[in-house]
Amino acid sequence: MPDDLTKAPKAGDLPKTLSPRRLEAYSDGVFAIAATLLVLDLSISEFHVGSNPSDAAVWKALFDISDKLVSFVISFLILGVLWGIHVRQFEFVERVDQVVLTLNTFRLLGVVLVPFTTTVTDNFSGTVPGRFLLPLNFFLIVAVSLWQWWYISSSARSLTPNISDRYRRISRRNALVAAIMAGIIAIASIWIGSFAFLLFLLNNVVDVLDRREAKKEPGRRTRAERRGEA
Amino acid sequence: MPDDLTKAPKAGDLPKTLSPRRLEAYSDGVFAIAATLLVLDLSISEFHVGSNPSDAAVWKALFDISDKLVSFVISFLILGVLWGIHVRQFEFVERVDQVVLTLNTFRLLGVVLVPFTTTVTDNFSGTVPGRFLLPLNFFLIVAVSLWQWWYISSSARSLTPNISDRYRRISRRNALVAAIMAGIIAIASIWIGSFAFLLFLLNNVVDVLDRREAKKEPGRRTRAERRGEA
Amino acid sequence: MPDDLTKAPKAGDLPKTLSPRRLEAYSDGVFAIAATLLVLDLSISEFHVGSNPSDAAVWKALFDISDKLVSFVISFLILGVLWGIHVRQFEFVERVDQVVLTLNTFRLLGVVLVPFTTTVTDNFSGTVPGRFLLPLNFFLIVAVSLWQWWYISSSARSLTPNISDRYRRISRRNALVAAIMAGIIAIASIWIGSFAFLLFLLNNVVDVLDRREAKKEPGRRTRAERRGEA
Amino acid sequence: MPDDLTKAPKAGDLPKTLSPRRLEAYSDGVFAIAATLLVLDLSISEFHVGSNPSDAAVWKALFDISDKLVSFVISFLILGVLWGIHVRQFEFVERVDQVVLTLNTFRLLGVVLVPFTTTVTDNFSGTVPGRFLLPLNFFLIVAVSLWQWWYISSSARSLTPNISDRYRRISRRNALVAAIMAGIIAIASIWIGSFAFLLFLLNNVVDVLDRREAKKEPGRRTRAERRGEA
Repeated sequence: MPDDLTKAPKAGDLPKTLSPRRLEAYSDGVFAIAATLLVLDLSISEFHVGSNPSDAAVWKALFDISDKLVSFVISFLILGVLWGIHVRQFEFVERVDQVVLTLNTFRLLGVVLVPFTTTVTDNFSGTVPGRFLLPLNFFLIVAVSLWQWWYISSSARSLTPNISDRYRRISRRNALVAAIMAGIIAIASIWIGSFAFLLFLLNNVVDVLDRREAKKEPGRRTRAERRGEA
Repeated sequence: MPDDLTKAPKAGDLPKTLSPRRLEAYSDGVFAIAATLLVLDLSISEFHVGSNPSDAAVWKALFDISDKLVSFVISFLILGVLWGIHVRQFEFVERVDQVVLTLNTFRLLGVVLVPFTTTVTDNFSGTVPGRFLLPLNFFLIVAVSLWQWWYISSSARSLTPNISDRYRRISRRNALVAAIMAGIIAIASIWIGSFAFLLFLLNNVVDVLDRREAKKEPGRRTRAERRGEA
Repeated sequence: MPDDLTKAPKAGDLPKTLSPRRLEAYSDGVFAIAATLLVLDLSISEFHVGSNPSDAAVWKALFDISDKLVSFVISFLILGVLWGIHVRQFEFVERVDQVVLTLNTFRLLGVVLVPFTTTVTDNFSGTVPGRFLLPLNFFLIVAVSLWQWWYISSSARSLTPNISDRYRRISRRNALVAAIMAGIIAIASIWIGSFAFLLFLLNNVVDVLDRREAKKEPGRRTRAERRGEA
Repeated sequence: MPDDLTKAPKAGDLPKTLSPRRLEAYSDGVFAIAATLLVLDLSISEFHVGSNPSDAAVWKALFDISDKLVSFVISFLILGVLWGIHVRQFEFVERVDQVVLTLNTFRLLGVVLVPFTTTVTDNFSGTVPGRFLLPLNFFLIVAVSLWQWWYISSSARSLTPNISDRYRRISRRNALVAAIMAGIIAIASIWIGSFAFLLFLLNNVVDVLDRREAKKEPGRRTRAERRGEA
């Protein structure tokens, strides 16, 4: 018996698939680093406060970078959401093949670009490319996620042998809805910038209201339950 | 049988919860990177030692950045403490839901800010915001930790089925005590700066003294045992 | 019974080998960080667009760094491919010894150099060293991979007890083919630069065409099957 | 039954110890990031090659930073060795307590300082502090390793229930020998700089010679076997 149970049990035949364990570890690493690198955008190099600054001068300098702080928070939360989607999708994936690995590399390529597109947004939010680039980046990541999930969850490939048909159907539809919403956000951002990401929050607010209603009417299923969100 | 035992055993139904495995991996990554980025604050760019420096000139340049070195050590130890709290809290967590994921993202948002608030402290420790920002950051992380732990450990949610009521009660109280102490440190820091973090050490010193006393009186339980610290 | 099954079950004797678990975690971390650091090469410091830029000026500035963006994408994909080779090689490794650890350190040394050699390529692609350095780096990593895999997969060492002789033979030959191709790419790059990496893609294109043919002739095995690719 | 076997099986009582799993993950992350940050020291900012450089100019610029490249390689290998020591020590650790966590934080504090002390060495190798700082850093890490391992491996604490008395004795002595050697290297480096690290290699060379001798005399045990190296 192998002493590490996360290893494939036998390899007598030529393996066509791999355990998803290291794909997950690599992805967690890339998400964590991209999210942490965002903080490098916050620096004191623009603090023009003189050599012996007053309290008020430092408070003002901090206030002056509040735009950057908001950008930082938005991008960090976006990466958190994208990471959460990755986690939920791989929760029931038993095996991965070369195509899944390749699509994952492209998904992470989009993730790694976020610190750069965030900087562009920070500095050029007065222009169309400044407003458009981060939401476009977000859309491309979600689009690759959709492609990857539809590939993985196809019942013909048996990479996810333990999920029910109902879960398969609902999760595929959810991935599609997320991609469509990300596309709408990308287009809306041309005019309204990063506020377009609030559309994602709006979706959650509707869910919360819906749940409150459901509490009053036992037996009725909430939107979230109908959608089958994890 | 799935070949990876860390996967959920069946997914016939729509999953409402996830394994905490990847939340832990992502958190470990973010803590590790934030802690390591702190070293970027230590640089030789302020070493004004000429092109052919003497031993004494380099020693002096190193001595001149000792303030930064102290800041670096304090922030590194703070992140170590906060990481330790995260580890102890998740030791018995069997499942996580979307709320836990979201609260964790906010907890990590605070962690990622530490390299920035450390830099501000380094450079403006003569001002109130310079003294206050890092302890405030610390307090906000501990406050989200409290919120997250109270949510997770609620017996109604069965995310921690294997912990005793006594452990539940004590760990919830400990999280509250930590948040109150962090709040006191944040306020005290306005006047005394990062020395306020010594209050945390003081707590440990009292424990050590108490343990020594307990050795002399077999049967008496130490403060730490009464608090049920891991 | 130890509560963590990834630990070696007994250590009564002096251990000569270790579980590969942490070697994999360390490698995943180094690959993830090296891949993410690549984004630091993309910066807005060369955006000479004035203080109140027009849309066209920002689009043009983005277009002007498209060379860097291409370099970034190529290096990210290269690291993705090298990481995939590492994953597939260690999928069936049960134990590692000190030699494997040391060879892995040299393999990762090459990985960590990629952000630097990418920068050189970015800035000096008009010169021979500018074109040659990244493919040379790639070749050295693949060469150490070959060395490491031949060492690990030697049946005399019993580090991979669960693989068949056929898999052993095919995987050793594949590692050799990869090293030879990387060597050809390195030499070709002196004249044609990073386009030489397209030779790797060419290999995949031939496979795809071959698979399409194989669909038409049931019973015939594809090149990939003959090579035994995972 | 918990679905994640790496979790502690029961928590009815107040836990005094934790699984070492996340300590290992955090340590792997910090080592990986510190090792990868070293590459930031290699930059093209000192390439004074004009706007349209010749091949020879770029080769010369690369040659001019060969000192930095050597420093980079040495520090990367040192971190690789220190990481290997950590892995071997924790291979048989079943549980960790708060003291182990705290000592580990200090151990990692030393690791994170390596990119800084490497930069100092790079730039001021003509001075005593420039030669001494990196080996001192190395010594401090090995000294904390010694402290931590002696604490962990004490049979009274039952954190390592599965190791034999012989392994315990030999591994404790090896940790002491490593600390003494690191101390000698630190002192020797005041005069001979980073070449002092070659003393570590010397140790390995003697082992190799010894093994060759042992092959000629079956029955005789090598030095490494007598030392019980993993």
